[in-house]
Amino acid sequence: MKFSFKNDYSEGCHPTILQALLQHNLDQQAGYGEDEYSLKAKDLIKEKINNQHSDIYFVSGGTQANLIVISSILKPYQCVISASSGHILNNETGAIEATGHKVLSIETADGKLRPADIIPVLENHKNVPHQVMPKLVYISNSTELGTIYLAKELEELSVFCKQYNLFLFMDGARLGHGLTSEISDLTLEKVAAFTDVFYLGGTKNGALIGEAIVINNPVLQEDFAFNIKQKGALLAKGRLLGIQFLELMKDNLYFDLAQHANQQAMKIKKALQKKGTAFLADTYTNQIFPILPHNLIEVLSKDFEFYVWKKIDENFSAVRLITSWSTGDDAVNRFIEMLETELA
Amino acid sequence: MKFSFKNDYSEGCHPTILQALLQHNLDQQAGYGEDEYSLKAKDLIKEKINNQHSDIYFVSGGTQANLIVISSILKPYQCVISASSGHILNNETGAIEATGHKVLSIETADGKLRPADIIPVLENHKNVPHQVMPKLVYISNSTELGTIYLAKELEELSVFCKQYNLFLFMDGARLGHGLTSEISDLTLEKVAAFTDVFYLGGTKNGALIGEAIVINNPVLQEDFAFNIKQKGALLAKGRLLGIQFLELMKDNLYFDLAQHANQQAMKIKKALQKKGTAFLADTYTNQIFPILPHNLIEVLSKDFEFYVWKKIDENFSAVRLITSWSTGDDAVNRFIEMLETELA
Amino acid sequence: MKFSFKNDYSEGCHPTILQALLQHNLDQQAGYGEDEYSLKAKDLIKEKINNQHSDIYFVSGGTQANLIVISSILKPYQCVISASSGHILNNETGAIEATGHKVLSIETADGKLRPADIIPVLENHKNVPHQVMPKLVYISNSTELGTIYLAKELEELSVFCKQYNLFLFMDGARLGHGLTSEISDLTLEKVAAFTDVFYLGGTKNGALIGEAIVINNPVLQEDFAFNIKQKGALLAKGRLLGIQFLELMKDNLYFDLAQHANQQAMKIKKALQKKGTAFLADTYTNQIFPILPHNLIEVLSKDFEFYVWKKIDENFSAVRLITSWSTGDDAVNRFIEMLETELA
Amino acid sequence: MKFSFKNDYSEGCHPTILQALLQHNLDQQAGYGEDEYSLKAKDLIKEKINNQHSDIYFVSGGTQANLIVISSILKPYQCVISASSGHILNNETGAIEATGHKVLSIETADGKLRPADIIPVLENHKNVPHQVMPKLVYISNSTELGTIYLAKELEELSVFCKQYNLFLFMDGARLGHGLTSEISDLTLEKVAAFTDVFYLGGTKNGALIGEAIVINNPVLQEDFAFNIKQKGALLAKGRLLGIQFLELMKDNLYFDLAQHANQQAMKIKKALQKKGTAFLADTYTNQIFPILPHNLIEVLSKDFEFYVWKKIDENFSAVRLITSWSTGDDAVNRFIEMLETELA
Repeated sequence: MKFSFKNDYSEGCHPTILQALLQHNLDQQAGYGEDEYSLKAKDLIKEKINNQHSDIYFVSGGTQANLIVISSILKPYQCVISASSGHILNNETGAIEATGHKVLSIETADGKLRPADIIPVLENHKNVPHQVMPKLVYISNSTELGTIYLAKELEELSVFCKQYNLFLFMDGARLGHGLTSEISDLTLEKVAAFTDVFYLGGTKNGALIGEAIVINNPVLQEDFAFNIKQKGALLAKGRLLGIQFLELMKDNLYFDLAQHANQQAMKIKKALQKKGTAFLADTYTNQIFPILPHNLIEVLSKDFEFYVWKKIDENFSAVRLITSWSTGDDAVNRFIEMLETELA
Repeated sequence: MKFSFKNDYSEGCHPTILQALLQHNLDQQAGYGEDEYSLKAKDLIKEKINNQHSDIYFVSGGTQANLIVISSILKPYQCVISASSGHILNNETGAIEATGHKVLSIETADGKLRPADIIPVLENHKNVPHQVMPKLVYISNSTELGTIYLAKELEELSVFCKQYNLFLFMDGARLGHGLTSEISDLTLEKVAAFTDVFYLGGTKNGALIGEAIVINNPVLQEDFAFNIKQKGALLAKGRLLGIQFLELMKDNLYFDLAQHANQQAMKIKKALQKKGTAFLADTYTNQIFPILPHNLIEVLSKDFEFYVWKKIDENFSAVRLITSWSTGDDAVNRFIEMLETELA
Repeated sequence: MKFSFKNDYSEGCHPTILQALLQHNLDQQAGYGEDEYSLKAKDLIKEKINNQHSDIYFVSGGTQANLIVISSILKPYQCVISASSGHILNNETGAIEATGHKVLSIETADGKLRPADIIPVLENHKNVPHQVMPKLVYISNSTELGTIYLAKELEELSVFCKQYNLFLFMDGARLGHGLTSEISDLTLEKVAAFTDVFYLGGTKNGALIGEAIVINNPVLQEDFAFNIKQKGALLAKGRLLGIQFLELMKDNLYFDLAQHANQQAMKIKKALQKKGTAFLADTYTNQIFPILPHNLIEVLSKDFEFYVWKKIDENFSAVRLITSWSTGDDAVNRFIEMLETELA
Repeated sequence: MKFSFKNDYSEGCHPTILQALLQHNLDQQAGYGEDEYSLKAKDLIKEKINNQHSDIYFVSGGTQANLIVISSILKPYQCVISASSGHILNNETGAIEATGHKVLSIETADGKLRPADIIPVLENHKNVPHQVMPKLVYISNSTELGTIYLAKELEELSVFCKQYNLFLFMDGARLGHGLTSEISDLTLEKVAAFTDVFYLGGTKNGALIGEAIVINNPVLQEDFAFNIKQKGALLAKGRLLGIQFLELMKDNLYFDLAQHANQQAMKIKKALQKKGTAFLADTYTNQIFPILPHNLIEVLSKDFEFYVWKKIDENFSAVRLITSWSTGDDAVNRFIEMLETELA
């Protein structure tokens, strides 16, 4: 069987989580998120973000988190702003629009939004009431291109949003990877301080399912649970989410898993750099986009699964390699070995 | 700790399912429901319904299944018809309306819809184009009141719907319980033959999460997957649903679990009947609604958790007792024992 | 040709309005409601309601007004409460649900809502977050059954709504008729004081099109214009609405027209009462619902158009007779004459 | 008072229309579009498009027409494709998204879509089911930039859409201007033959309000009236729309008015061209976008109202001049006179 670098959700979950599910399986618990594991997991998250006043909710996946959060915030005529690479723009089958809201796209090279990117959009939406009103800025960290926000960048964006009366929402499907990147100076506490709402992604970081939505702005907290239920996201057995996040949050497991994924990717990156390989973007998380000759891609494809991301020219294409919490040294070493051989 | 008769989702899942999750945990699988377990589970369901042309999709929960199915079928001006006790009417926070569609309510004593109930609603919706157009009939089996459809009843409803150009959708959150009721003559095969779409509920019958939507009418099959993704219900790790339904469908586990739940409820029912207890509805599934004197309710509440459903008069109230796949003989026997003592 | 008692919108508009349209036809005016006629008409309305702080918007029709107002107020999980006879429940093709919101129906004999009707609905919607949250009370004056709210009744409802944190919205498609009813003690000023938002209907009271939405509660005023544009209700030539309401509001025309309609209906009512006729509801506006023998209905149908509203028994049915601003004495006298002859 | 070249809806309506409204004012007519004028106007349109099988509906304005047509066609996961200048993208406050559908934007220089523009969008939307499904192509004629489709261009687009299973919808807010442009070889009959649905704009061509939606594809005709009612667009006094379109369609008035507007714009265009003025786009309808020096713009602004459309550089900006059915020779001559003087 091939090694897979296609995504970070090919396996089940971290064994510790399964053990916990086994251990607690026959306990009788309240439904709909009122179980003791969910309550404890929320307490742990509040501790880690150092904010007892945030509200926390667990849902199953990223698209679900995005559509619930965004539709809960916006009035019918308000819209969300996203980098053109944003997951909500391209990979969620119009989930946001299906709740009635436009997503404005801003072209950026690295998948990140800065105040200077947003200002022109605000300028171009002043023909009241003939245009939608931008009200929410959606960012991902790490981004869909594997890049990350530094603390200063996030702070600037946060200040800007407050100044312009915009809410700031961080899609954290890969937040663990973003925060444990070797170049990151951002912490979970700062993420909570600089955003109105964000989520901690579990699905791509060792859980079976699960994202933890963290609402920091009290204005956005009121009656939020109704939105979860209405969108079909309130699990009867909320314990399934609670137990997972309890394990992930205990003993730093969440960050250890993400860091492992990042490190495996960085090993491959360094091997490629030694060979002079160029990259589509300069990333320090578990997604890398090396530009490889087509014949090498063909050879690697025999032992590895990955996406060919973008054709560069007649001879080269960028591929996307994703490592995960479960990517073993065997896969990484085998890949590097093949590189050495083929690029010798 | 008290024994709980509050609901059928207080525990985790049947141990066999957890074992399978453990066993397959580190296999690398395709995402989004293309894993081999999901494919095999779908094959097993097709076998059991004896229809190779049905399409099957797994989602997390009942509200999610309901809103996806209903919104995928109806045009903007069409509506769904439900018994007044229908889950979509009372317990889903307007999830159907949030997708743009009215739910018309029909009062019925037993939670079941018959052609004679529906005809007046059709008669009262002929003021074209000033009224919504009824297009889909929503039923539950077992119903929210614990009652069930007999084969002949479902067939008559099916014929009626075809005649009046209505689609028929069965909410099967407790379908296992409905089909294994001691008075049921309905089979899964007949359910598939008589409905346009239905689902097999896992959450309330031993799974952690999961409902299997079965689309029998080819007209409703086209592009259905888009709806699942758009509503945030497409799990990256679809294997979690696939593995569970594979276990439930193998060796009849799904029906065994439901039958167990029913039998435990029937034991209690018979003990109550011996004491001359009246019931709110005459049910043969895992939900019973005995009418008990308030002092007995108080005493039982010391050892058991359950909902007081409806006040009958100064001295009596109906309570709802729900048993589940995991309800042990100890709980049932203890309950009966207390009845014997108290009603002696 | 037959005289029509079918509705109050069979003719064009009051001649004064057409004259004004002619007079101002070639003036160049700003679009989208910024024309001078709209501005003046709004000033006149503010004067008549004695509230300079209300915001006023003109739209084309009643369904449009209802869906814009309601969807602008409610969060996704909130719903509106209506009497079971409410126009939004039965005659608007699910327009409210199409914006995502459930309409809860309350059975009432006379089409009016009182606090005692609403309290049980609130009681039955406390299963947070599994049910929609009632947030807006929708009433009509005059109601769809021709009945009206007295000042004290509206005040009580207003106090109740404030107490329970509900908004109160009055559909005024026939507000002129309601206020000029011979038994009414309600004034436009009081309507504005007791409701969060209401509208003055033009279409059924002598305009070609047009309803004037009046938003009294400042909380509901913010950015309201966006909703009008988004729902396709912002006319480029807003002057068409402005000129009409300017004429209707000048010199009391609006109320004179409504009073005329009411008086014509009352003449018929009295003639019927003299003959001992019973009525479906005891109304004092331009809608009456006499219960007539079938043979009389047949005879009257030769000269008059009207709806047979409800079959009472083998021999009798209730009919609906509507008079309008343009119902002449000839029609009324002829009708009474036929009654005298036939019931002699 | 200044002459206005700001838009084509500054005045009331063509006097003939007002005369007809006067003449028929007191006729009693059926409501909701069943009046005799609406029926006759529809017959005239069917004659002019030479298709007895098209269905025709009148609504009040363009945004309303767009949102009703588009939401009636698309399933929840389907989207519409528009040129980046499309009215639905920029000037309708997210009206389409509010009905649940994404609008994909294609950059084009002249506001027109060609198959070659659309193919890449289709190519980039093949990640089933993670992306919206393009299903409807939205074009305007004349476009928002004043350009038009030639017969051959529209035919090619039509063939392409059929081949790719896409519907084609033409926004005809300024269809009269498009078809009577001096360079147009397109006819109303061809528009009907090449599109699935289009509308004839009245508001910007001499009516008070009104657009005539023409549905040519039988697949899109079924139950369309429900959508009009649900979106609040069904006027009780449909006669207001019927009478206007009856007048516009009789004796070619619709096209005469549009041609007049075009000719007035062309006079100005030629005068500018003689002076060597460049234009933002090469248009032959009632919208022209000359690039003028700022000092000239300032001088012209004293006598004329118009929009400064786009800054070109330190010294020049493009302005938008719109003429209408009512633009007199006095305004045109005065403008040309000023040009002669200032550019002498």
